[in-house]
Amino acid sequence: MADPIEFYFDFTSPYGYLASTRIQAIADQYKREIIWHPIVLGFIFKTTGSQPLTQIPLKGDYAIKDMARSARQHSIPFQLPSNFPVGTVAAARAGLWLATVDQMQSVQLIHALYKAYFVDDIDISNSDNVVTVASSVGVKPDEITAALETPEVKGLLKTAVEDAVAKGVFGSPTIVVDGEPFWGHDRLNDVEQWLSTGGW
Amino acid sequence: MADPIEFYFDFTSPYGYLASTRIQAIADQYKREIIWHPIVLGFIFKTTGSQPLTQIPLKGDYAIKDMARSARQHSIPFQLPSNFPVGTVAAARAGLWLATVDQMQSVQLIHALYKAYFVDDIDISNSDNVVTVASSVGVKPDEITAALETPEVKGLLKTAVEDAVAKGVFGSPTIVVDGEPFWGHDRLNDVEQWLSTGGW
Repeated sequence: MADPIEFYFDFTSPYGYLASTRIQAIADQYKREIIWHPIVLGFIFKTTGSQPLTQIPLKGDYAIKDMARSARQHSIPFQLPSNFPVGTVAAARAGLWLATVDQMQSVQLIHALYKAYFVDDIDISNSDNVVTVASSVGVKPDEITAALETPEVKGLLKTAVEDAVAKGVFGSPTIVVDGEPFWGHDRLNDVEQWLSTGGW
Repeated sequence: MADPIEFYFDFTSPYGYLASTRIQAIADQYKREIIWHPIVLGFIFKTTGSQPLTQIPLKGDYAIKDMARSARQHSIPFQLPSNFPVGTVAAARAGLWLATVDQMQSVQLIHALYKAYFVDDIDISNSDNVVTVASSVGVKPDEITAALETPEVKGLLKTAVEDAVAKGVFGSPTIVVDGEPFWGHDRLNDVEQWLSTGGW
């Protein structure tokens, strides 16, 4: 099997959420695995001098309109959460930790956390809510609660962010196919074309 | 005939250039006119706090790679100019002025200026170069040289930028179809889908 698709995302990223609902079908079509990389963009924004999209004059208004429009275009359930954007350290640590325990369950958790935030308006910056969502996919609350505070799990996130920066990731989602990075939900067509043709 | 497509662009914008080479075929297919709106993004960046794309850490490296890749994808001649980005006040004034004199010739000038900058590496921030390019599409050098310094033509650009901001334009290209804004060369597929379906 060819190399996996690398999917970098932040749990508070609407376009990351939208792409997360579509990338599996694309990967399946081209017989690729996906490596899911939860990151916290806030740490990277310190490097790039960026700020949350919806808070930028003019661009923010467009983005809010475009997120909903992009969701409608692909029939993806979506609402901008009441509390947006939020910190995603707990959610990212949860995803990274669970991947070391049960890879398949960690993917279920990723989808569940995104749905909780962008469909059910649950504030996933609250680690109690992260634990509740995790329990809905079969993770024992005691285990994840303990894991989230260990130095090892904190280190996983630090390493994940450093790895992302080393690969040039600055936004969510960033999809890397055979070393080629594509930034944005609106580049999934390009990802498909690259997978089908081998590049241009 | 349905409403025209509004095409907002900056002459120093690589993605504006790429889209400028493709928008006419799309407009023709859906029997739409195009209104070309040269603007100077530098004035708008003061509002949005943005900075030139290629100067942003990480994002700039990606952009430089992606511009060339997007050009290859669509077989569009392209090279990043030696002097990039540049001020486009003279170029934008030239385009706006000529549109008041000869609409068709102004579109020829827009394509010629973009080609001069992104294919022939001519620095179009230099107004002498703008005059030379204009003469290649049949504009008399004396006439354009005089026009560029009139208060009326300076006012055209000021009004164009204010109009763009009022419509929410913050980046280049921005393509507005029936009141619906699409930002980016990578949204031309969406523009086509909107034109063909009437929206979603």
